[in-house]
Order: sequence, then C-alpha cells, then structure tokens
Amino acid sequence: MIKVGIIGGAGYTAGELIRLLLNHPDVELVFVNSTSNAGNPLTAVHEGLYGETDMCFTDEMPFDAVDVLFFCTAHGDTRKFMDTHELPENLKIIDLSMDYRLKSDDHDFVYGLPELNRRAICHSKHVANPGCFATAIQLALLPLAKQLMLNDDVMVNAITGSTGAGVKPSATSHFSWRNDNISIYKPFEHQHVPEVKQSLQQLQQSFHSEIDFIPYRGSFARGIFCTVVVKNKVGIEELKRIYRDYYAEDSFVFVIDEPIDLKQVVNTNKCLIHLEKHGDKLLIVSCIDNLVKGASGTAVHNMNLLFNLEETVGLKLKPSAF
Amino acid sequence: MIKVGIIGGAGYTAGELIRLLLNHPDVELVFVNSTSNAGNPLTAVHEGLYGETDMCFTDEMPFDAVDVLFFCTAHGDTRKFMDTHELPENLKIIDLSMDYRLKSDDHDFVYGLPELNRRAICHSKHVANPGCFATAIQLALLPLAKQLMLNDDVMVNAITGSTGAGVKPSATSHFSWRNDNISIYKPFEHQHVPEVKQSLQQLQQSFHSEIDFIPYRGSFARGIFCTVVVKNKVGIEELKRIYRDYYAEDSFVFVIDEPIDLKQVVNTNKCLIHLEKHGDKLLIVSCIDNLVKGASGTAVHNMNLLFNLEETVGLKLKPSAF
Amino acid sequence: MIKVGIIGGAGYTAGELIRLLLNHPDVELVFVNSTSNAGNPLTAVHEGLYGETDMCFTDEMPFDAVDVLFFCTAHGDTRKFMDTHELPENLKIIDLSMDYRLKSDDHDFVYGLPELNRRAICHSKHVANPGCFATAIQLALLPLAKQLMLNDDVMVNAITGSTGAGVKPSATSHFSWRNDNISIYKPFEHQHVPEVKQSLQQLQQSFHSEIDFIPYRGSFARGIFCTVVVKNKVGIEELKRIYRDYYAEDSFVFVIDEPIDLKQVVNTNKCLIHLEKHGDKLLIVSCIDNLVKGASGTAVHNMNLLFNLEETVGLKLKPSAF
Amino acid sequence: MIKVGIIGGAGYTAGELIRLLLNHPDVELVFVNSTSNAGNPLTAVHEGLYGETDMCFTDEMPFDAVDVLFFCTAHGDTRKFMDTHELPENLKIIDLSMDYRLKSDDHDFVYGLPELNRRAICHSKHVANPGCFATAIQLALLPLAKQLMLNDDVMVNAITGSTGAGVKPSATSHFSWRNDNISIYKPFEHQHVPEVKQSLQQLQQSFHSEIDFIPYRGSFARGIFCTVVVKNKVGIEELKRIYRDYYAEDSFVFVIDEPIDLKQVVNTNKCLIHLEKHGDKLLIVSCIDNLVKGASGTAVHNMNLLFNLEETVGLKLKPSAF
Repeated sequence: MIKVGIIGGAGYTAGELIRLLLNHPDVELVFVNSTSNAGNPLTAVHEGLYGETDMCFTDEMPFDAVDVLFFCTAHGDTRKFMDTHELPENLKIIDLSMDYRLKSDDHDFVYGLPELNRRAICHSKHVANPGCFATAIQLALLPLAKQLMLNDDVMVNAITGSTGAGVKPSATSHFSWRNDNISIYKPFEHQHVPEVKQSLQQLQQSFHSEIDFIPYRGSFARGIFCTVVVKNKVGIEELKRIYRDYYAEDSFVFVIDEPIDLKQVVNTNKCLIHLEKHGDKLLIVSCIDNLVKGASGTAVHNMNLLFNLEETVGLKLKPSAF
Repeated sequence: MIKVGIIGGAGYTAGELIRLLLNHPDVELVFVNSTSNAGNPLTAVHEGLYGETDMCFTDEMPFDAVDVLFFCTAHGDTRKFMDTHELPENLKIIDLSMDYRLKSDDHDFVYGLPELNRRAICHSKHVANPGCFATAIQLALLPLAKQLMLNDDVMVNAITGSTGAGVKPSATSHFSWRNDNISIYKPFEHQHVPEVKQSLQQLQQSFHSEIDFIPYRGSFARGIFCTVVVKNKVGIEELKRIYRDYYAEDSFVFVIDEPIDLKQVVNTNKCLIHLEKHGDKLLIVSCIDNLVKGASGTAVHNMNLLFNLEETVGLKLKPSAF
Repeated sequence: MIKVGIIGGAGYTAGELIRLLLNHPDVELVFVNSTSNAGNPLTAVHEGLYGETDMCFTDEMPFDAVDVLFFCTAHGDTRKFMDTHELPENLKIIDLSMDYRLKSDDHDFVYGLPELNRRAICHSKHVANPGCFATAIQLALLPLAKQLMLNDDVMVNAITGSTGAGVKPSATSHFSWRNDNISIYKPFEHQHVPEVKQSLQQLQQSFHSEIDFIPYRGSFARGIFCTVVVKNKVGIEELKRIYRDYYAEDSFVFVIDEPIDLKQVVNTNKCLIHLEKHGDKLLIVSCIDNLVKGASGTAVHNMNLLFNLEETVGLKLKPSAF
Repeated sequence: MIKVGIIGGAGYTAGELIRLLLNHPDVELVFVNSTSNAGNPLTAVHEGLYGETDMCFTDEMPFDAVDVLFFCTAHGDTRKFMDTHELPENLKIIDLSMDYRLKSDDHDFVYGLPELNRRAICHSKHVANPGCFATAIQLALLPLAKQLMLNDDVMVNAITGSTGAGVKPSATSHFSWRNDNISIYKPFEHQHVPEVKQSLQQLQQSFHSEIDFIPYRGSFARGIFCTVVVKNKVGIEELKRIYRDYYAEDSFVFVIDEPIDLKQVVNTNKCLIHLEKHGDKLLIVSCIDNLVKGASGTAVHNMNLLFNLEETVGLKLKPSAF
C-alpha cells in the first residue's frame, strides 16, 4: 500500500483527491493536513464523503509515515513550504500548485503531463502537476507540435466550471451572479500560457507564435470545454491519424469522430478530442473534467507512474453523464 | 415627482428597487446611500443598470430632499438607525427589514401587505414591508383565514432562489455548492412565521394552530414556489370562489385553474395561486418573484399607495419567462 | 463472470446500468437490445461511454448466452414481454419497470429493496426493482414501520431531477422551460405510493394512514431530495438509534447528524438520512441519486445479491460532489 | 393605436413579442394566428402571461383589421406565405425569419438592423428582422467596417441560450443533456454569416475576409455572449472613441469600459460592447438577449421606426439581472 499525506487539505483539488484516493485499491490515506480545519472531520468540509471515511483534518505532518506527499496548496505556498521544511530524502512529491511547472535550474520537478513526459515522470521523485486549462490546451496541440506544424498564432477559447476558481467565495463565484451567466477573464494573459508554450517548444523548438487564449467562466461547476483554431494545410484524415498515433499508448485521451460535448467527460479522467477542417483552418475541440483530468486525477495518474502501478488504477470512474 | 432616497443601497433588494424606480414614471431617485460604496457608480455594484443611470452611491443622507425613504438595511439596522437619527416629520418610510413587521406599542409601522392592509397603508406614514416567504405563504392562506377556515396545523414547503439569501457570499451561496443542489434550512423555525401568524390572526382571531414551515434552498436565483396543505371539507369550486372573491380588487394576485410553475412569475410583481382538493386535504400552490413581489416590488406598491398613485404604476413588468 | 443482457437499452436507466456494468469486475455485458437503435454503437446514444466500449445495440436477444436479464423497458412492456416470450428456466430477471412491484398471485417477483427484503432477494430468481421516489420515501420510513410507529398521515415532499422523467422529450423536460423553474405534478396521486404502502404494511400490518405525497420537478438532472413529516412522541436520540439499528447491516444507507444536501449523494449508490424533532413532529430528510440508488445502482445491488457477491461490488463510486 | 397581427404565434419569438406588445402603450394586439393552437388561450402556450391577457390563438388572419403583421414563422415559411397570399397594399410587414435578410432583386425588404439602416427602415414598408447571432456579431464589428478597418480574417466565438434553438424539443434542448453542458454546432458554417458579411460590405465594400464563427450551445435559456478577435493597429482609446461615435445616436448600444457579463443585458433590449487591445489583436466583447435585442425587441424597435414613434417606446425593460 502506498502511504499518502496531503498538505492543504481543505480546497477543491484536495477534496477531489481524497474522493479518488479513498477508492484507490493500493492507497492508504495517512493524513490530511489543514491548519484552519484541524480536528474537523473531512466530511464537514468535503461534499460526498459521508459513509466513506471518519478521518479528521490534522495540523500535524508526519512525513516519515508516508511515501508520497500531495501539495494542494495555493500558488506560491508549495515553494515557501519547501524552502522552510526538511523533508525525508525518499519522500515523493506531487505538487498541484503552479510553483514548479516551469523548468528551472533551481528545482528538479518534472512537468507532470503523462501524455508528454511519461517516461521522465516514472523516473522522477518530484512532479509538478499541470494546470487545468493548460491540460486541455496542450492535449489539443501536442500532436501538431510533434509534427512541427505549429507555425501560426493559435486561437484558443476555453470555458471552465466554477470549481476552477476554488472554494473561496468571491463575487464571480456567487450563485446569484454566476447562474445562467457567462463572462471572460484575463483574456490573452492567463497564467497557464507559459506552461503550454514550454511544452509545445519541448516538441517543436521553433514554436514562437502566440497562444491567444480567452478563458470564460461557465455556468456549471465541473469541466473545461476548449476550442482551438490554427492554420493547417493537411487533410483531416491525415490529421486524425497523427492525433491517434500520438495518443496510441495513452489510456485517457480519445480522438472522436463525432462532435463532442462537455458532459461526455464529467467525473472521469478522460480527455476527448474532436477535429474538423474548414478551408485552411483546423478546428480542434478538447474537453476534460477540470478537477479530475485537469487536477487530482492526473495527480493520481502521476502517483501511479511514480510507484510503477498500471496507470489506470483507481481512475476508471463511472461518468456522471448528467 | 416623488423624490426617493435609499438607505442600504448595496444589497439585492436595493438593486432591484433601483431597477424598478428608474423605470417608474413618477419617481425621481435622489440618493442611494451606502457607506461601503460611497463614490462608486451604481453600475459597479448592481447588475443590469448600464445605460440607465450614471448615479453614484453617496455616504450622505439629505433627508430634506426626499419625500420617502426606503430602508434596504440588514435586519436590526433600521431600528438602530431610527433610534439614532432625527427624521423630518413628513418623511414617509418604507422599511424592507423585519424590524417593524410585528405590531407593538413602541412603533407606528403598518404591516405593508396590500392584499391585507391596503386601506391602512394608504393612510399611514411608516410601512413595514413583508418578508418574501411570508408574502407567498400569506397570499396562499389569507382567504381561508377570512372565512375562519384555519382550524388545523398547516404544512408549508417553500423553495427560494439564491437571491433570497443576500449578496454576502457564504458556503451555501457558492455556485459550486448550490448549482444542481437542494437543501433545507431552519425547518419549523424560520423567522417569517410570526408575521404570518400575526396576519392570519388579524383575520381569524381563533387561529392558534401550527405553521409547520420547511424552507428549501433552490438551484435558481429568483423566485419562491410554495405548497401549503391543510385539512378542509369545502368543495374545490367553492374554495376557488372564496379565493377569487378575496383577491377581486387586487391587481397582482391571480387564481389559476391550471397547474402553475415558478417561471410564470419571475421578474414580475404577480402572485399566482392554484388550488386542488385531494380527499379532505386542500393543496394550495403559490408562487412569486422573491425580489419583486417578495420585496422591492411590494415596496414600490406600498409607495404607490402612500402617494395615492394607481397601484400598478411602474409595476407592469415584462415577465422574463425563461 | 456473470453474463448480462439488457432489454430496452436506449433509455436513461439502461444507460446508467451500462455505465455501472462496464466497471463491474465480475460482469460481462453480452448484449444490449434496442429495436430502434439496432446497429448503432452505444456511444451514439449514451453519454460518457467513449473509450469504454465499442459495443453496438442489437435487435437480437440471445437469452441462452446470459445469466441475468435486466429489463429497462417502459411500464407495461415487461409484462407484455414476459407474456409473449419463453425464457430459459434458470435465467434470472431484474425488472426496472413497475410491472411486478406489487405482490400478486400471478407472479413470483420479489420486491427488490435490499434494505427491506435482502434475504428474499438472495433466494429469488425474479426481482422487481423499486421506483426512485419509492426508494427515497421507504428508506425514510421503514425504521418507523418496523417499530409500529406509523399511526398518522405522513406528509412527503420530494424533488426529482429531470432524468427521472426519461429520455423522451416533453414540454417539461425542455431546457428552456425547466431551467431555473420548479413545479409539481401528480400531487397526492403519484404511482409510487402503492409500493410504499405495501412495504410499510409488510413491517407494520396496522398501517392504514395516508401518504400525502407531493412530487416536484427540480431544475437539476440527477437526484431526489425528500422531506417527510409525521407525528411522533419519541425523543430524537432514541429515534436516531432506531434508524441506525435498522440500517446497521446495510452498506449504502447512512444516518447523518448534520443537515444534508442533495449533492452529497449524486453519482453514488448512497442514501443519506437526517432526523430532527420539532415539537411532536418528526422531520426525516432523505436523499438519493435517482438513477443510481433509485434505479440502476439498486439493480446492480440486486444482481450482486442474486449471484452471492459482496453487495458493494461495482458500487463504490466516486461522488461527483459538484 | 397601432393594430398588430402575428403569424406563427406559438414559438418563442412570438411569445416574447406578445409579452412586449402587451406592455407597449401604443399597440393594440388584434390577432395571434396559430393553426396548431387555434382556440387555445395564449396563456396555455406562452409562459408569463397570466393576468395580462385572455386572448386566444386564432386560425383566422383578418389582414384588414391590422396595420402591421409580424411573421414569427419558421425559416422558409414567410416566403411561402407571401407567394400564396394577397396582402393589403398598405400593410406593413416585419419578418423575423431569415427569408428576406439577403438583398435581392426579387423583394423589397429592408434589413432591419436599426444601428445600420435606421433611415431606410423609417421609409420602408417591409422589414427583415436580423438574426440573433448576426445582431451580436454585427454590433461588434460595424464601427470597424465604417472605418474600413476590417482587412483580416475575423475570429468569432459566441454562446447562445437554449431559447435560440426554438420551442420544438430536440436532443440538444433536453434539460438532462443541456444542463451543465456545453458544445458547438455548425462551426464555420452558421447560416447567419452571410447577413453579417452583407452588412459589413455595405459599410466597407472591400471587405472580403473570412468570418470564422464558432457557435456554442450554453447552459442557460436567454442571451448571446460573443467575443470577436481581429488584427488592428489602432490604440484602444481611439477605438473606443470610434465605437462611441458610431453608436452616439443609438438608444440601445453602450460601450462599456469595464468587463461585461451576459446577465447585464438579459431581459433588456440593450447591447453592451467592451473593447480591449492585446498586442496587435483587438478583442471585442458584445452581449445581447437573443429573444429581445436578438429578435422580438428589435422587431418592436423596427415597428416603432415604421410608425414614427420614439424608438424606445415599449422597450425600456427592467433588467432581470439574476
């Protein structure tokens, strides 16, 4: 059994991680750390856990009792934590914040997108889990980068559910405002663009075009639905083949001939991709569940890789569908 | 023109009041007071006002410049305000808080449900606007009380939209939680029951049964849908006649033969009522828009009465329907 | 491996059953019969199945190739089918329609509510799966009936998601109408009341009171949230103990001290129950996922019992929570 | 009083038109024609009309009794109607279908976008009301075309509410499917593109770039939220000035400095526009209510112009905001 600890246990990604790990056959959840909720049962904070666990949050961090530590901390806090704590040499770390996603000489975290870096992840100790939007966008573009086909600006429109904005209440997460509403935020300036560019350049060094990304706030709780438009002269059948080849060894990415919709993937670890050509424009649609494939599901996927488990263990989830 | 001031201008009922008053042909909105938002344009706080006003919130309260003052303050704050401010003798007041809804020797506010107290409102200076749930429940029961027919416990189930809980963010107003969800709160103990009982006893002194009221949080923003069950031996056609007679002079209450649904009244000042008999049980369904008929619409209705306007002025609203 | 066939494969309960069975470790799905969709892939009809199966609907019914047959047919159609087909002697049947829920000399179906009839189900061959509302209401009332405490009329209000109304489009399942709306249907006359009464009388022969049931259409897709009010003089702690004792051996029913909400159970096979006393009124809140615990999850549960599997196999589902 | 008849009275745009006209001070609604609903009260079909009218649908068409005829017919049916009926010489016509939107020698309909063709509409007898998406897109682009600034392909992403798809039930208008979902349809091939191009070329003859338009189905009932990206080298303040100048005489279009959201315009006849520059890309956001500004509100606007009324009469609507 893999012994697991969680730091920053009160947020949405921690909640989803707990829901996944409680049903993972090879995991023992040892502690869930949360300063603000220490002593409270997990069920008091995280929806859906009644009958599954009696565990309480703790303000302790018994590192020696665990094999892997998940950081579900706010952006910036993982780095602060690492700078101020001495961790056991062999403790594996999966960080869901954005602190270590960009390569740098001052850290050894591997960017944890299995469809890009599976082998490196398997041999690593520290994994930086990708951003949710970044996952949906990269999975839409990686096969093109692999073929060195990204030579024009890329237009991305992607809509996220409210859980992407976190548990902390705000004006734009208030039900009265968000219900039936739609809006954009940080257009052309979203913080996930740099990690997308880094990945594309890993496959296509010559990639220096713009990723023109407009993020939308959708009136649903779970999921990211993404459309990408880029110029491309190749025929649709060849493009589909390129995508299917790229993802041939991957368990969670599927290229679908029919049009797709968001609820095909909600509550699963899948990413669906659909391709269309219109004149010389290639339209790529991708969708994921932002909390699963876009966060905690990939974190478990990375854990499976770190511990040499079959990569789908604990991740074959019944779709909610409705 | 009636000159209007608003105290407590940043909340939902104030916003709705402003949206109504800006389209009221006989009103001039003079000031909207809000300490926290002083200097900000109304449009920065209240949805839907772009193109309708350039007014800003003020921290001033020029009482002498207005004919009527609306209090959209938190419960308890109107009373505090009245205790600490000297107001002009002739200034009329409409209070949307619950501070003066219950009759008492220490105040002269009239309970402002036009379908119960129209004449008294017309001759008053101070009006206590009813609660939203209280409005839906009373309109379902007043004709029975008038006929002295309330002699058993009354079972009430009523579902409210999220705007009923106010603009302040909370766990249960978070979109991620409330979307697709349903729950109850304060069952059998809601603060609106006393004003309902007071009104029923005004018409039927002998009424001393229980109002067993279960309030629900619905996954929509606007509206209250209410079912009431009470024992009754009278036939359905006679009951419908009693209801239609009771509301014959009222502009906003309609007894409908067909089953009704909430969106029939959303964004209107209407209350629809539907009656059915099942054995010796009478089922009454009522629905209103909590922000209009349940709050700011009735406040405008009361203003119309205070100033001898035709009662529907400014309140013939296009239903949103969808 | 249990070999499974499905009749009536194009509806919502069939879709959910397929989603469950594809992840059930001891099941092989042999055929899904649908006349209207014969030849089409399951993915063309049922959301969420991409990447999980390439199976197509068939118009054949190879009974000899399966161990158990699920009927996801419209009400009335199972009986017609049984009357016109010769089935293998040992073929087990789980019928999700309402055709055989009421006991009768002309059939041998056991009413398949495991919390009431576990032992009988284990020894049966033909199981009539309970109705969704009926499940939520019975689980709220069975412990009282067991204690012979149901001696007054029972008031039930229960709200269902749109999937309860089936896949066939109708005016009240149109998004434009149902979104943000709420309404009731068949008040006091819902077809699930007889099976509820039958179960209560199984435990308390003297039960002859009314079940005054108002069903609501909610603006969400999955789930049933139910409140029940009945007179009771026993203290709350004793009542909780009675409920916990009743469900002590059951894997999916949990009595929760804190208030509960619908999304605690969505996409799970759980039923949560919460109890409160107010004066001499007992309030019972229960909630289930109508497609899982209210239909296909219980069908799988019954299959597990018929085949002597541990009852939770294939039913430990990650809650969707949001 | 303008006497009004409606052909095709059972659909969504007819319903909205009726809701508007019943509150229009200068209109008398004479007849609402619907073959399928003849004899039924309007309230049996159109949500929100209880208490406002007792009128019934008719299968008659007393042309001589009306001054203007609104066609709320399915696409293709207006033309069929015109080809087979003799209409009074002076009868004005406003057609909400797409039959006459494209200029042609075989008809004399004026394209009824007041912000483009106000003067021509005032002097016309036959008006072709614009499409809903077409309205949102054109209002986002007209000022650029006026300045001859449209010299590159234009990327448009726009999300519509379910009422845009009409009252007829379909798989993608089923609540169970559409709730919390998002998807695209007819990407790059939507039928509104030709009328957009026609209008842009009216202002900028040299415009021959592509309108790459991706329409989305949103999980809300009312509204269109539209983002447009096009290359532009002019500074943001100059661009805002160009837009404000263009719309200076228009009553319903507002250029807003702050980010906008859909619910700012729901249940109103407004269009809000927000502009941002990011490098050499201009981002234009526009939003409208698809049933009001995108259909029936503009139809009333056109009627006001045809009859020389002040253009806002009957169109100052309280925003629903929530």
